[in-house]
Amino acid sequence: MDATRPLDALNAARNKKVIVETKSQKQFIGTLKAFDIHINIVLDDAEEREAGEVKRKLGTVFMRGDTIILISPA
Amino acid sequence: MDATRPLDALNAARNKKVIVETKSQKQFIGTLKAFDIHINIVLDDAEEREAGEVKRKLGTVFMRGDTIILISPA
Amino acid sequence: MDATRPLDALNAARNKKVIVETKSQKQFIGTLKAFDIHINIVLDDAEEREAGEVKRKLGTVFMRGDTIILISPA
Amino acid sequence: MDATRPLDALNAARNKKVIVETKSQKQFIGTLKAFDIHINIVLDDAEEREAGEVKRKLGTVFMRGDTIILISPA
Amino acid sequence: MDATRPLDALNAARNKKVIVETKSQKQFIGTLKAFDIHINIVLDDAEEREAGEVKRKLGTVFMRGDTIILISPA
Amino acid sequence: MDATRPLDALNAARNKKVIVETKSQKQFIGTLKAFDIHINIVLDDAEEREAGEVKRKLGTVFMRGDTIILISPA
Amino acid sequence: MDATRPLDALNAARNKKVIVETKSQKQFIGTLKAFDIHINIVLDDAEEREAGEVKRKLGTVFMRGDTIILISPA
Repeated sequence: MDATRPLDALNAARNKKVIVETKSQKQFIGTLKAFDIHINIVLDDAEEREAGEVKRKLGTVFMRGDTIILISPA
Repeated sequence: MDATRPLDALNAARNKKVIVETKSQKQFIGTLKAFDIHINIVLDDAEEREAGEVKRKLGTVFMRGDTIILISPA
Repeated sequence: MDATRPLDALNAARNKKVIVETKSQKQFIGTLKAFDIHINIVLDDAEEREAGEVKRKLGTVFMRGDTIILISPA
Repeated sequence: MDATRPLDALNAARNKKVIVETKSQKQFIGTLKAFDIHINIVLDDAEEREAGEVKRKLGTVFMRGDTIILISPA
Repeated sequence: MDATRPLDALNAARNKKVIVETKSQKQFIGTLKAFDIHINIVLDDAEEREAGEVKRKLGTVFMRGDTIILISPA
Repeated sequence: MDATRPLDALNAARNKKVIVETKSQKQFIGTLKAFDIHINIVLDDAEEREAGEVKRKLGTVFMRGDTIILISPA
Repeated sequence: MDATRPLDALNAARNKKVIVETKSQKQFIGTLKAFDIHINIVLDDAEEREAGEVKRKLGTVFMRGDTIILISPA
């Protein structure tokens, strides 16, 4: 991710695998397909993980931005 | 769900079965009938589930967007 | 409730009996008399219920939208 | 309270006794003197109650809207 | 406090002693010197109280509106 | 701090030592260098304190406004 | 960091090492690459720390502003 503005970093991560962590203390991993200024995002091939283990497979998932703490390349 | 913007993904899921998870740690499954930019949604034939079991049937349900963590095809 | 936009579903429920659940884990049942874009609502003949039992009768009640998780026909 | 829009119901309750419940699980009873679109309100002759008993008398009180869950005629 | 709009009541309380209660369950008493539409306020000669006892003296204090539950003449 | 509007009080405190308390129940002391309408602030020579003792020295610190409960001259 | 407005302080910290603390009580250290008015930020070479120890390495990370309590030069 290269960034002069934060959303540039998300744009650089598009179609790449990212880790997403939420305020509800959950971790999701998937391919970042879309985002908007509210940081609503769409992941493809998403999995929820717990302590490094796959907890469940979700496929495509829309996540509401205000639940997200961080997004980082996997 | 195909998406260049996150709401495109919700649009692709319209009239399809989705899982909705809330900040109150609840899981709902139903047919996505409507959504708006606040991620307020309407589900048809909605059920609340707990640990994979149907907890109750709700029929049609309006859910306020700011309570939603994620929406994913069922 | 029929809906292309979420508020259409609330409109279809006007003057009908609805269940309202709040972030404070409470359940109210009453006739939906009014709502606005913030999902502020007014119920008539409202009751608070707990585990299916009437806990108290409230008559008319104004509920602030940001406290609401879901609204569903009773 | 008669309402086509939720704030109409508050208007109909002006100068009448109302119960106000807050997110902090408190209950106040007083005469509704004023409100605005944020649901900031002013009560006159307000009392805080707990389990039906008067806990303290507050006289006039300004309450910030985002703390309020519901307002109902007493 | 006389009020047709809620902020009128705050205006009537300006330069008078008020009790302020916060979402963090704290109580402050002081002279209301200023407020704005966000209910940010400034108190002079402010004290924090606990169970009716002075816990500490704060002098002048700026309080952010979104932390405030209620403001009432002392 | 002299104030007709709340932000005037912050302006009067600029370059002076202030106590800042946060929703996370922390207390910071430092010189108020900057603030904006969101009550985002910058402190210089900032320290975090616990029960009156210095817990750590932070130097310059940017604090996001929505985490702040109160700001008071030290 | 030199500041007449709070964001000036963040601008002065760009490309420098900063500590970021979140509402979820976590601490991240990394190089501040980007920020916006919502205090969304991007860190490079980011690490999460716990009690002064590196808990995990994250590389580049986008953090949503509303999760952030403070940002301070490391």
